[in-house]
Amino acid sequence: MKKLLNDPSDVVDEMVDGIVAAYPNRTRRLDDTKVVVRDDAPVDGKVSVVSGGGSGHEPTHAGFVGEGMLDGAAAGEVFTSPTGDELSEMIQACDGGAGVLCVVKNYEGDVMNFDTAAEMAEIEGVDMVEQVVVNDDVAVEDSTYTSGRRGVQGTIFVHKCAGALAERGAAIEEVTRVAEKVVDNVGSMGMALTSCVTPDKGEPTFDIDDDEIEIGIGIHGEPGVERTEIMEADTIAERLTTEVLDDVQPSGEVAVMVNGMGGTPLSELFVVNRRVQELLEDEGLEMWNTWVGDYMTSLDMEGCSVTVLDLDDELKDLLSAPTDAPGFKTK
Amino acid sequence: MKKLLNDPSDVVDEMVDGIVAAYPNRTRRLDDTKVVVRDDAPVDGKVSVVSGGGSGHEPTHAGFVGEGMLDGAAAGEVFTSPTGDELSEMIQACDGGAGVLCVVKNYEGDVMNFDTAAEMAEIEGVDMVEQVVVNDDVAVEDSTYTSGRRGVQGTIFVHKCAGALAERGAAIEEVTRVAEKVVDNVGSMGMALTSCVTPDKGEPTFDIDDDEIEIGIGIHGEPGVERTEIMEADTIAERLTTEVLDDVQPSGEVAVMVNGMGGTPLSELFVVNRRVQELLEDEGLEMWNTWVGDYMTSLDMEGCSVTVLDLDDELKDLLSAPTDAPGFKTK
Repeated sequence: MKKLLNDPSDVVDEMVDGIVAAYPNRTRRLDDTKVVVRDDAPVDGKVSVVSGGGSGHEPTHAGFVGEGMLDGAAAGEVFTSPTGDELSEMIQACDGGAGVLCVVKNYEGDVMNFDTAAEMAEIEGVDMVEQVVVNDDVAVEDSTYTSGRRGVQGTIFVHKCAGALAERGAAIEEVTRVAEKVVDNVGSMGMALTSCVTPDKGEPTFDIDDDEIEIGIGIHGEPGVERTEIMEADTIAERLTTEVLDDVQPSGEVAVMVNGMGGTPLSELFVVNRRVQELLEDEGLEMWNTWVGDYMTSLDMEGCSVTVLDLDDELKDLLSAPTDAPGFKTK
Repeated sequence: MKKLLNDPSDVVDEMVDGIVAAYPNRTRRLDDTKVVVRDDAPVDGKVSVVSGGGSGHEPTHAGFVGEGMLDGAAAGEVFTSPTGDELSEMIQACDGGAGVLCVVKNYEGDVMNFDTAAEMAEIEGVDMVEQVVVNDDVAVEDSTYTSGRRGVQGTIFVHKCAGALAERGAAIEEVTRVAEKVVDNVGSMGMALTSCVTPDKGEPTFDIDDDEIEIGIGIHGEPGVERTEIMEADTIAERLTTEVLDDVQPSGEVAVMVNGMGGTPLSELFVVNRRVQELLEDEGLEMWNTWVGDYMTSLDMEGCSVTVLDLDDELKDLLSAPTDAPGFKTK
């Protein structure tokens, strides 16, 4: 499989350099790490919001580093959690004295390494390290890499809402409360037409026939709930949206994300979105804002996911707040 | 080839519905057309900036409809120019009495149909219809669908600068002047690892071996300048950047776009960007801002393009102006 790479083992290192090179006055790389932080980190007296995880999901997470969103993002190797050491360095570098909130996607490696990192950072003198674990994937309970549900695209709404509140000077307890509110009110589900291809292997992570799709897939290509024949986009949109709505049970205004898995063109995501919006309307829900594009991907996998966040006035206000993070466009 | 579609012949129609459904209070669809316009069009007394072309290049052009950028965007069938009728309807719907500037990518169908549309619109009472033809692709002089160079990713900087100046109330002559200034100072070049697959055919548009790439490719899969063995990302970045710089001959600050062709993950684009930025620095150029992502694609093609815009204070000011167009994040 062809890729735009140099030595495949350098991909994360070179990607991080490429990110910081693109946004040099807004971000910088912590020496000897694969951590991207705001150029002005630590911001004195401000709660910091940080995240991290395996690479291969870009723009997650480094694309969300910026004012009003993340203070730092740690990139592990492809589909591999960052080490506790690197996460601890990030927490220390972002500590402005008001506490650091770690937004953790629910995967065993990430949860374990963020736990270790929090302990290490506290030993190094960071006063308050809080964690919120995101588990928005409604497809499967327990999975290849998780106890409980996986954390996927809903994480980006957590970054945005927590980051916006932190930017306004709220205390760590308030920032943590809002992050947990998003986690409690968001659900996602994805599917794939093709497998991703990791740079080191250079071949598909899993086999899938030319007339098959995988419903409920994870962002590392791990199994979902059903391998089925290819269906029309409308049928796929119905399946994903219905399962998400059954879980989230929203009643009024919602925010929606129709996310591409990396290899799917935007035109197809809009075809999916058309049906998603019809379904929301059928349910009597009011769409407040929609994000369509690649937000949390699985390398070059073809496929999509649907995320729904049940809104209240506080979350709408925080989602509307400005951010200069390159990967997120405020309504 | 699997795609997220319903009936392939409905893809553009359903995509346009999906776009408007995503941004309902900012955009609307003109009845019986595949034209997306600002919800508040026509804006009385404001110059309008419109564009259009074949579909399959999303977010081009409808993703750039919004305050401070495009007033309207017409979508043709996949890789097919919109009709003169639809373009004329767009021009009329966007005419706020101060003139309409059409931003046309240099392809024979687009140029011909925009010419026809301008005449039709003037007959229907639109006073001033101006056109700017973008021909930023430095790869080939004349091509499958053009006399002269092709119009590609540099078009988006034309949308942004012209749209920003129009939003400030400038006259049509001024808006046209700025659009031409961008055209005079921008260059792009692309490459592909794989062919795109059009929805109606369902198979690759061209054959390319597993160890080959196409340098200088067009956004419809039309031939470039060289079919060569797969090279490292750095070598590809050097080839594209060098040829663009040779053409644009910038001397100070530049804006850069590292664009994905639709099927390439963002991680790989950042690897390319890393080397692009090194080359700019080697040339003594100052990178003012970089956009990395999918801006003008070729369906699911894997590949990238590099665009460089030579800046002055006026263009920096216009690129910095706010826009709510969903496809463009201001610095």
